[in-house]
Amino acid sequence: MAKDKPKAGETPRRQDLAERVTALDLPQADLSPGMAATFDKCMEKIGFVPNVLAAYAHDMAKLEAFAGFYNELMLAPSGLSKLEREMIAVAVSAENRCFYCLTAHGAAVRQLSGDPALGELMAMNWRAADLSPRHRAMLAFAVKMTRASSEIVEDDRQALRDAGFGERDIWDIAAVASFFNMSNRMASAVDMRPNPEYHAHAR
Amino acid sequence: MAKDKPKAGETPRRQDLAERVTALDLPQADLSPGMAATFDKCMEKIGFVPNVLAAYAHDMAKLEAFAGFYNELMLAPSGLSKLEREMIAVAVSAENRCFYCLTAHGAAVRQLSGDPALGELMAMNWRAADLSPRHRAMLAFAVKMTRASSEIVEDDRQALRDAGFGERDIWDIAAVASFFNMSNRMASAVDMRPNPEYHAHAR
Amino acid sequence: MAKDKPKAGETPRRQDLAERVTALDLPQADLSPGMAATFDKCMEKIGFVPNVLAAYAHDMAKLEAFAGFYNELMLAPSGLSKLEREMIAVAVSAENRCFYCLTAHGAAVRQLSGDPALGELMAMNWRAADLSPRHRAMLAFAVKMTRASSEIVEDDRQALRDAGFGERDIWDIAAVASFFNMSNRMASAVDMRPNPEYHAHAR
Amino acid sequence: MAKDKPKAGETPRRQDLAERVTALDLPQADLSPGMAATFDKCMEKIGFVPNVLAAYAHDMAKLEAFAGFYNELMLAPSGLSKLEREMIAVAVSAENRCFYCLTAHGAAVRQLSGDPALGELMAMNWRAADLSPRHRAMLAFAVKMTRASSEIVEDDRQALRDAGFGERDIWDIAAVASFFNMSNRMASAVDMRPNPEYHAHAR
Amino acid sequence: MAKDKPKAGETPRRQDLAERVTALDLPQADLSPGMAATFDKCMEKIGFVPNVLAAYAHDMAKLEAFAGFYNELMLAPSGLSKLEREMIAVAVSAENRCFYCLTAHGAAVRQLSGDPALGELMAMNWRAADLSPRHRAMLAFAVKMTRASSEIVEDDRQALRDAGFGERDIWDIAAVASFFNMSNRMASAVDMRPNPEYHAHAR
Amino acid sequence: MAKDKPKAGETPRRQDLAERVTALDLPQADLSPGMAATFDKCMEKIGFVPNVLAAYAHDMAKLEAFAGFYNELMLAPSGLSKLEREMIAVAVSAENRCFYCLTAHGAAVRQLSGDPALGELMAMNWRAADLSPRHRAMLAFAVKMTRASSEIVEDDRQALRDAGFGERDIWDIAAVASFFNMSNRMASAVDMRPNPEYHAHAR
Repeated sequence: MAKDKPKAGETPRRQDLAERVTALDLPQADLSPGMAATFDKCMEKIGFVPNVLAAYAHDMAKLEAFAGFYNELMLAPSGLSKLEREMIAVAVSAENRCFYCLTAHGAAVRQLSGDPALGELMAMNWRAADLSPRHRAMLAFAVKMTRASSEIVEDDRQALRDAGFGERDIWDIAAVASFFNMSNRMASAVDMRPNPEYHAHAR
Repeated sequence: MAKDKPKAGETPRRQDLAERVTALDLPQADLSPGMAATFDKCMEKIGFVPNVLAAYAHDMAKLEAFAGFYNELMLAPSGLSKLEREMIAVAVSAENRCFYCLTAHGAAVRQLSGDPALGELMAMNWRAADLSPRHRAMLAFAVKMTRASSEIVEDDRQALRDAGFGERDIWDIAAVASFFNMSNRMASAVDMRPNPEYHAHAR
Repeated sequence: MAKDKPKAGETPRRQDLAERVTALDLPQADLSPGMAATFDKCMEKIGFVPNVLAAYAHDMAKLEAFAGFYNELMLAPSGLSKLEREMIAVAVSAENRCFYCLTAHGAAVRQLSGDPALGELMAMNWRAADLSPRHRAMLAFAVKMTRASSEIVEDDRQALRDAGFGERDIWDIAAVASFFNMSNRMASAVDMRPNPEYHAHAR
Repeated sequence: MAKDKPKAGETPRRQDLAERVTALDLPQADLSPGMAATFDKCMEKIGFVPNVLAAYAHDMAKLEAFAGFYNELMLAPSGLSKLEREMIAVAVSAENRCFYCLTAHGAAVRQLSGDPALGELMAMNWRAADLSPRHRAMLAFAVKMTRASSEIVEDDRQALRDAGFGERDIWDIAAVASFFNMSNRMASAVDMRPNPEYHAHAR
Repeated sequence: MAKDKPKAGETPRRQDLAERVTALDLPQADLSPGMAATFDKCMEKIGFVPNVLAAYAHDMAKLEAFAGFYNELMLAPSGLSKLEREMIAVAVSAENRCFYCLTAHGAAVRQLSGDPALGELMAMNWRAADLSPRHRAMLAFAVKMTRASSEIVEDDRQALRDAGFGERDIWDIAAVASFFNMSNRMASAVDMRPNPEYHAHAR
Repeated sequence: MAKDKPKAGETPRRQDLAERVTALDLPQADLSPGMAATFDKCMEKIGFVPNVLAAYAHDMAKLEAFAGFYNELMLAPSGLSKLEREMIAVAVSAENRCFYCLTAHGAAVRQLSGDPALGELMAMNWRAADLSPRHRAMLAFAVKMTRASSEIVEDDRQALRDAGFGERDIWDIAAVASFFNMSNRMASAVDMRPNPEYHAHAR
């Protein structure tokens, strides 16, 4: 495939997504000591500060509450592995078509699984993936919660128990799926842009 | 209208909703000192502990993270009044048909507005309410975020600016609408039951 | 919860819903003797004339045809109790988000059942109610008719028979669910306002 | 195109739709004198009794209430012509994919307009028809009522006024569109079969 | 039913659909010898050239590619009869509400089956037809592909095998259903008008 | 982020997507000389034969008809650049959540544009991309065709003309969008697997 020549009026070839973090004009506040340490740790470990943190940094109280809630959800001990939590994150974000979360958490699935295609499958159509019954049940529940949460009934919870999940695991699946239904909407509402580093990560 | 006599096989007359908090069998953990103080304060001010707090109380770290995030969102200073935040909460919860949130936050709208019909309108069909242009724009944005967040574009944010909202106000509208998209799904996923006290409150 | 102070530009605190009956400018016709008697009977028994009757009163022939059809459906002898018919009415009206019908018939469910929470559950999310298998089957059929009537097949009718309903009962379930699909749309199309007395009734 | 030979297991070639009226086993009651006269008049004028009347004939009170309501709506004087009312009937029935109503009222559009293609257009996709602005506004309102009645707002009613409709005309458009949302659902719920005579009528 | 008199501002009685082929102003190219022969054959066998061929005739290469692809799909030997392929075509076109394809292929179902009602049922609501299990499975798969192709899973393919279809038959069902999802959209996008001869054909 | 250890019952880490082409058991036919040349040319230029060609290779006549139709559409001269045609392909495939087409044509957008992020944006949410008005109009039309083709009206075609597209360009936009509505459904119906080489291509 030879490259097309650009035409007059055409979309600029390179999407310069790094320049701004959101569509809102909200100046960054002074970082609290705790958040400054978090930002430093991000730079050290992954080389950049995830834009979701920069987006909340106009208000330290809100940034700290968000980061605390997120870390408890995605990083604390759980019956769900970190990869499983990220798979839920991406399948839910695909349902909601959230550019920020698909980019950042798609990279996390590729990284944690060591399987680039698995990240693509979660972002494009999880039903096309060769998943274990455990993972299929987990994602079916998360997606039903996303599409039609008011139609969740006891049979849906029982299907998770039948797939081997315990009561606390069900809480955690629900919590991760719910969280990304929040986060997807927040990101889309303010047009949050992902750090460009994610695109080539762990391909 | 005379009352019907109950029939064989009929739904029991009185929905005994207070007996359990969720459909999951998760024992309550020992309350941390901070959370014990919060629960005491609830008892003192409203006479009961909202079931959403009881539902998270199987894990103190998660309860504290949730309560911190919630308080920052709904009670901290904002360009949006507390009533406005509760109106968003109920309009979003109506879209998602969340029994818990419609019950608890419908009561809050009735209480904060002193207008029982306004609470009903938010829960049943906000478009049928006689709203100011400011409130109509606010709820239209929140509901578009709920239904089709990936279709939010700059025109939608500009409509909020045109209705008088500032950049930070837009963030706050987005944050409240996003939060209840999480909370509605969490409540439905675990079948969270509202405290019965809400039903007759501020009618 | 302390009450918020009203702000400039805010929605007026009290929704004065009693002033008009619909958004259309249609003067009331002279009541026929039969309808005058019906209106008197309403005043005597419940203290007001339901606005749906006032809305049709611009044309006596249409008012009488509507009232006759309604009474035959909701008040005539049937294998379904009056409460069951009102439960269908509210669950269908919730699906269609009809402010008028949810308000008026939600009050009827509270009144006939003596269970305020049951009225709220029908209006907010019937799937969250602790219903008998009979009532769950009845409402599932009514809601499928509301959402996707062309997809009703023999299996759906058989599910009603399996739940104990006879041929005539199935007709009556279908007739009530169909009627409120008409009535919800009529009310929303002309912006019919419920009498304010319903809001506090039987709480 | 030569005809295919039937194959083993294939759908029988001729849909014998006349044998039964609905999927419910409800014996016809004795006709009241008024209904007997109506049935005789149908036989005389069109050569058959429309199955919708036969379907309600298991209960004379319900049949009379239905026929009275229908005649008042579709045949009484109105600012809408009979053809216009039938166009609404078919466009709404197409939205709901009701086999009975599309067949019976599609025939009525062909008959009243003398334009077979107009009947097909209403049944298949009214947006593809070359309609006057009056008719386009009328059908757009009827279809919005069918799909999302809770989203009807004053702008929608005003669009009808701008297209030349008066207050009573708007009521009548709403009433016809609402009625067929009832009738479509009733027909699909009980699997009502149209009289076969309709298929070839006014082609 | 007496005919209504036309009113001022009313839709013209006769939809003159033959005048133009699409909404685009694309002049017909000189027919290639192969296409000239095809057009002559159409005139000889059915008395007109289907407008879909006239619509593509602005570019001979595209017309030939389309005609070749179509003939291979609908006329070449297959485990599906021609009638079965046309039934899929119409059921899919009904889902997409395509005026052109419903008109042209509805006529083909009537012609090939000798059963006018079957053509109407496919165009209006295939679920209301008395179909063999083979045909019900075939159309259920085609319609699921139309509505939600990303949700097709192995169970759906297995249901076809259970209904007696082989691997190649499944390919052919998928190919026909896919093709009409293309053709319906092309026709609607350019407002393709069916030849008027189809309307009265094989009634 | 350290890698999680695999757990019992977990989805196998590496999605071995290359092993099979579709879920159907259809043996490859002998390649015709023309198709053998095409397959050789693919091997030479990109190092593999796209699985879509392998999937059709159970029947040479169908493979040739498909390849001819595809090449005419995507590679022949057009007022749309090859990149523009691929952008439509990916935006439509995203709407339909087609794993095969998103993978193969997402790679083509990355390759032709030299902008990896643009490929991701088309696959995840084209509305979040910084597009020219020309491209925004083009994709809006393609997506409306995908979601609700029966609602396309003259205003939609006029919007393309206003964005600078000619009559033939509109045909070509419609043709590409239609084609991928076919191709997405075919791929999902038979569970077509993309060649693994696409995943890392042009990142």
